[in-house]
Amino acid sequence: MKEIVQTGLIGVTGYAGAELARLLLHHPRLKGKPPVFAGRVDAKDAARGGVPLGEIHPELVDSKGSGSLKQEPFSWELLKERGVEVLFLATPHEQSREWVPDALDRGIRVIDLSGAWRLNEASNRAVYAFEDDGTELAAATQDRAVYGMPELHRKQIAKALLVANPGCYATSVILPLKPLVAAGLVNLDHGIVADAKSGVSGAGKAPTAKTHFMYAADNLSAYGVFAHRHTGELLEQIGVTAGEIVFAPHLLPIPRGILSTIYVHFKEAQTRASVGALYKKFFAESPMVRLYENGLPQIQNSVRTCYADIGFHLDASGKRAVIVSCLDNLLKGASSQAVQNLNVMHGWPESEGLE
Amino acid sequence: MKEIVQTGLIGVTGYAGAELARLLLHHPRLKGKPPVFAGRVDAKDAARGGVPLGEIHPELVDSKGSGSLKQEPFSWELLKERGVEVLFLATPHEQSREWVPDALDRGIRVIDLSGAWRLNEASNRAVYAFEDDGTELAAATQDRAVYGMPELHRKQIAKALLVANPGCYATSVILPLKPLVAAGLVNLDHGIVADAKSGVSGAGKAPTAKTHFMYAADNLSAYGVFAHRHTGELLEQIGVTAGEIVFAPHLLPIPRGILSTIYVHFKEAQTRASVGALYKKFFAESPMVRLYENGLPQIQNSVRTCYADIGFHLDASGKRAVIVSCLDNLLKGASSQAVQNLNVMHGWPESEGLE
Amino acid sequence: MKEIVQTGLIGVTGYAGAELARLLLHHPRLKGKPPVFAGRVDAKDAARGGVPLGEIHPELVDSKGSGSLKQEPFSWELLKERGVEVLFLATPHEQSREWVPDALDRGIRVIDLSGAWRLNEASNRAVYAFEDDGTELAAATQDRAVYGMPELHRKQIAKALLVANPGCYATSVILPLKPLVAAGLVNLDHGIVADAKSGVSGAGKAPTAKTHFMYAADNLSAYGVFAHRHTGELLEQIGVTAGEIVFAPHLLPIPRGILSTIYVHFKEAQTRASVGALYKKFFAESPMVRLYENGLPQIQNSVRTCYADIGFHLDASGKRAVIVSCLDNLLKGASSQAVQNLNVMHGWPESEGLE
Amino acid sequence: MKEIVQTGLIGVTGYAGAELARLLLHHPRLKGKPPVFAGRVDAKDAARGGVPLGEIHPELVDSKGSGSLKQEPFSWELLKERGVEVLFLATPHEQSREWVPDALDRGIRVIDLSGAWRLNEASNRAVYAFEDDGTELAAATQDRAVYGMPELHRKQIAKALLVANPGCYATSVILPLKPLVAAGLVNLDHGIVADAKSGVSGAGKAPTAKTHFMYAADNLSAYGVFAHRHTGELLEQIGVTAGEIVFAPHLLPIPRGILSTIYVHFKEAQTRASVGALYKKFFAESPMVRLYENGLPQIQNSVRTCYADIGFHLDASGKRAVIVSCLDNLLKGASSQAVQNLNVMHGWPESEGLE
Repeated sequence: MKEIVQTGLIGVTGYAGAELARLLLHHPRLKGKPPVFAGRVDAKDAARGGVPLGEIHPELVDSKGSGSLKQEPFSWELLKERGVEVLFLATPHEQSREWVPDALDRGIRVIDLSGAWRLNEASNRAVYAFEDDGTELAAATQDRAVYGMPELHRKQIAKALLVANPGCYATSVILPLKPLVAAGLVNLDHGIVADAKSGVSGAGKAPTAKTHFMYAADNLSAYGVFAHRHTGELLEQIGVTAGEIVFAPHLLPIPRGILSTIYVHFKEAQTRASVGALYKKFFAESPMVRLYENGLPQIQNSVRTCYADIGFHLDASGKRAVIVSCLDNLLKGASSQAVQNLNVMHGWPESEGLE
Repeated sequence: MKEIVQTGLIGVTGYAGAELARLLLHHPRLKGKPPVFAGRVDAKDAARGGVPLGEIHPELVDSKGSGSLKQEPFSWELLKERGVEVLFLATPHEQSREWVPDALDRGIRVIDLSGAWRLNEASNRAVYAFEDDGTELAAATQDRAVYGMPELHRKQIAKALLVANPGCYATSVILPLKPLVAAGLVNLDHGIVADAKSGVSGAGKAPTAKTHFMYAADNLSAYGVFAHRHTGELLEQIGVTAGEIVFAPHLLPIPRGILSTIYVHFKEAQTRASVGALYKKFFAESPMVRLYENGLPQIQNSVRTCYADIGFHLDASGKRAVIVSCLDNLLKGASSQAVQNLNVMHGWPESEGLE
Repeated sequence: MKEIVQTGLIGVTGYAGAELARLLLHHPRLKGKPPVFAGRVDAKDAARGGVPLGEIHPELVDSKGSGSLKQEPFSWELLKERGVEVLFLATPHEQSREWVPDALDRGIRVIDLSGAWRLNEASNRAVYAFEDDGTELAAATQDRAVYGMPELHRKQIAKALLVANPGCYATSVILPLKPLVAAGLVNLDHGIVADAKSGVSGAGKAPTAKTHFMYAADNLSAYGVFAHRHTGELLEQIGVTAGEIVFAPHLLPIPRGILSTIYVHFKEAQTRASVGALYKKFFAESPMVRLYENGLPQIQNSVRTCYADIGFHLDASGKRAVIVSCLDNLLKGASSQAVQNLNVMHGWPESEGLE
Repeated sequence: MKEIVQTGLIGVTGYAGAELARLLLHHPRLKGKPPVFAGRVDAKDAARGGVPLGEIHPELVDSKGSGSLKQEPFSWELLKERGVEVLFLATPHEQSREWVPDALDRGIRVIDLSGAWRLNEASNRAVYAFEDDGTELAAATQDRAVYGMPELHRKQIAKALLVANPGCYATSVILPLKPLVAAGLVNLDHGIVADAKSGVSGAGKAPTAKTHFMYAADNLSAYGVFAHRHTGELLEQIGVTAGEIVFAPHLLPIPRGILSTIYVHFKEAQTRASVGALYKKFFAESPMVRLYENGLPQIQNSVRTCYADIGFHLDASGKRAVIVSCLDNLLKGASSQAVQNLNVMHGWPESEGLE
């Protein structure tokens, strides 16, 4: 077990980057070793050594001076000089495709928050249209990637050189479904429905017609039905075919949080106790999943926490269930899951720095 | 065709009541004959002839003096004196159970916005626990009731003495499903899922823990799963059994609007054209339904209109569809549907006063 | 009094443009003569005769086909052909500076919603940095402009060729202050404070960092303190110097509505009655101003109406007052005030089509 | 300097109580000694030893079991048994009036978050109409009270037996004004204006017409103008008379946060540098105040922090300033200020546990 590591973070400017910075700055194992923040910096800012964190995210400023840390101009030399051992990428997936092989080549372990290395099947990757797909290097890199959901792949993550941090929607759908499907309970012929709703931060920081307040506020809209990029993660991780699940995301008029309502048919009648026990067993070693014994989770109780919350209702026959999962898309759906992976990779308690 | 009628409205104080008042006050056929507003009025207000509308709903005040109309103390004599021919009830269902038989007895036609008379099957009514259920009077009254969805029951509504105006959620689920189920397209063995999301006005005007801004804002929660009162309407009107549909409502952090996302399996593969044509035919005479030729409706475009909007996506196989319907819960989900019924009852154009 | 006029509207794509279109389409004097919508249209759309209104603003579609009206490629010939007599400009002010002289030259009366022609003093116009300022044409055009606030300039508007429709903030501050200052009640030495708060639609439709949902939601921020463009309108119309008033706008996390809280010292002690009487007299002929006899207006009651609402409180001494005004920035703050001007220009009732 | 203390908290059920619980549970000096939570508990809950914190505030549950802590039935014996040394009261002020003398009598130091003991002048207390006002006990208790704003009264708080924690609005107005008024810069003849805006949590947890989502959302309203309870705190702490300041609070459609916009006239012209230097000096020892060197704070950057943020603009003459302060009404406006006081009372770093 390593006592302390030097981390680096590329892409602190986005929403997930800001949350990740906050978590890393307060992580008990990283005290005294703040992450190296690096990225594209224009000439003027480069001349002053980078952009102070306090100018990028005023809300990160505390009286201990964290605001004066800087996002420095990225170079591999910089990372080497500073002794970066683990690199977080909160970058667009095109950039992650390019930089990850370089990092691995230099012996830096990577936790990539983008969608670049999450998918094993070429057919599922098609929606991304990666330019380098099919090259030898890309294939070799993909082979090294472990899907970074500790609740499913804890052991592989511990040794992984490249952790592909899951998508936010994917996390909210895989966690509640995996235990049921893996146990063979679900009647896949009848199809699973995953109706997911996400706050606006999921759409990113770029101002667009859809992130304009006038579009998002007082509204709800479905999008990406039958076509969302996270679908491939559902198929590979849950172990179902495209014909066995429908995934429909919606844009909620709130800043953050995802609630997924999931509908399944069981092969055999279940009881509250039988399903509850199954979940309990599956997540016995998973501190970042909270199971509701009664009632259903709601976004408000999950937002600004690092937990995924799961609850469910059965109908009178016990043959049908509605499962609700909630999480914060920027935390358990991105940055805190990344820190969970960091913890697992170093043998630290999985919830370290996340409560 | 009647040229003009005298309406009455009991229950103007609520949200749907306010919208109904606004619609009736501006209805071209009712000009010069404002509704008689009546209800429970305390002694002090009774002494001044009732409560001015402008004190109940300041937003209803216009420069023509509508704000000085009054909610007068209710009595059957008052309605008789004023010659009320059609009475709108925007009252709790217990009150509607009590008053409707009296109104019919006096020859007043009723459009009841409550859930009192919507359900034909005793088993479906059980959730309401009506005290008078099983009595001869109640049975006779129920026999006279017509479910007030013009798109389904236009002819019966035209002659009806008692119109049971549909529930808001029910409207948003029945309209998109009825055409498909009635045509025998849907594989009911696989089950239908109706994931519905409603703004807070649907929860009523009474301040409660769940309508508190701090609970509703920045939140999303599922409730009434497998148990919501509107379920019976779905079963009776769509023509499915409880085992063939799951209905899960959610509380949205917006003032008004419902979006329902509906998942069906088809028996045979369909095309965009085949489903579109079916809808077009079914709603050919229905001016208050807007069909989307492409894309999906969203709440923002339906709110503050009297329309129900319907759009859909098929998967590549043509065997599964996601249908999205949107409407304003206080208008097409309540008051404007009531006015639609008023129009149908008098042979006026169905969209009169609703655009 | 003209019975009917042909209107034109350039700039229907923005928020105010949409509201103006809605008002004009339903205006009782314009029935059967929908406005000519014109603007910059790309080649592809020009080829199909313009962009259907229903594609620009789906919420404007009604069953009478208004959605199929088109925004056509602008040309003066088009306007001439269609016989446009009054032209609304909901365009950026640079464009209004350019087009207004041309329109006047062609004998078309103009109601300009931009800030192009509102300011008589060159010093107040400086913030706009108009390229043509100082030219003879610009000076002559400015001479013809009447500030389009009917409550202040009804008679001049009636005959005006060019009406400069007021700014939204300006309307909300001038209306409550003008009567008090004009009557000589206000102690200007002590200074007036106008603390104004506006919904996000005031910031326009372009997606920017400040109109991003994540910035605007759950937030409040002051901006443009001592520097907002509407300040010049306050000075010229109220009749005070820059040193006698402070104006500080704030961005509210709501779609629409402005509330201005205004603080004044009186020279002599006033009473509720004396101030109320003054307002009543000043606005005696003004149907679009609603005076609160008790209490204060709030945004919710003014939004989606065409009224400006005014209420006030005096302190115990009668020497200080807090006045609150509310209006909808897209209606009384823009489009409905423009229609009010249209009405005044044609001798129609001022509130025609606005209730 | 004490190493560790046993705290108690009465009133964990409210919004400020929840935040206070969170802060105390994570406070580094209180680890291993969670607060004793006590309050009114019904018989059924008393039988099970109280109500688990996780049932009152699900969001407080973490994997370390904080959710299983209980709110126990209050009795002085309970507090004695557990050795409570410092008691936080997040109770209605009537209750604080009653309980504080008892606590002091038992040698327990009190930090009272209510308005019970904040005001020295009987005239300022009049708005509260305390039943015991004028009694000897009340007078003696008031004499012991120190106004709990460390930035103003650090030394007295250090020794205080009773700390009267400031009001949220009061904090947001006093902090930016005190330095300027104390230095004699402000022209009080011209009057100060404090236009304050608060999120809905400030109105408390009880469901009322004003905290209903439908009232608060998409709205803004002024209230308590010339009459708000916090006015007395402004007068006593800033050192001005009622005629020298106007305070007008507004209800914002957001969950939490206060922004106060403050308008002053200076006696002599100031510069950005002179005012900045004054603030810097005044708050040199105050880690929980963040001064903006440029620009103005906004709610979003202050919410969910324990800081008060202050920024300002001068006009060209240097004679007028607009000052903006922001804070989280539940933190710096209530619970974190209470913890700040706890820190000061025990000689711990003032920002301990607040970053």
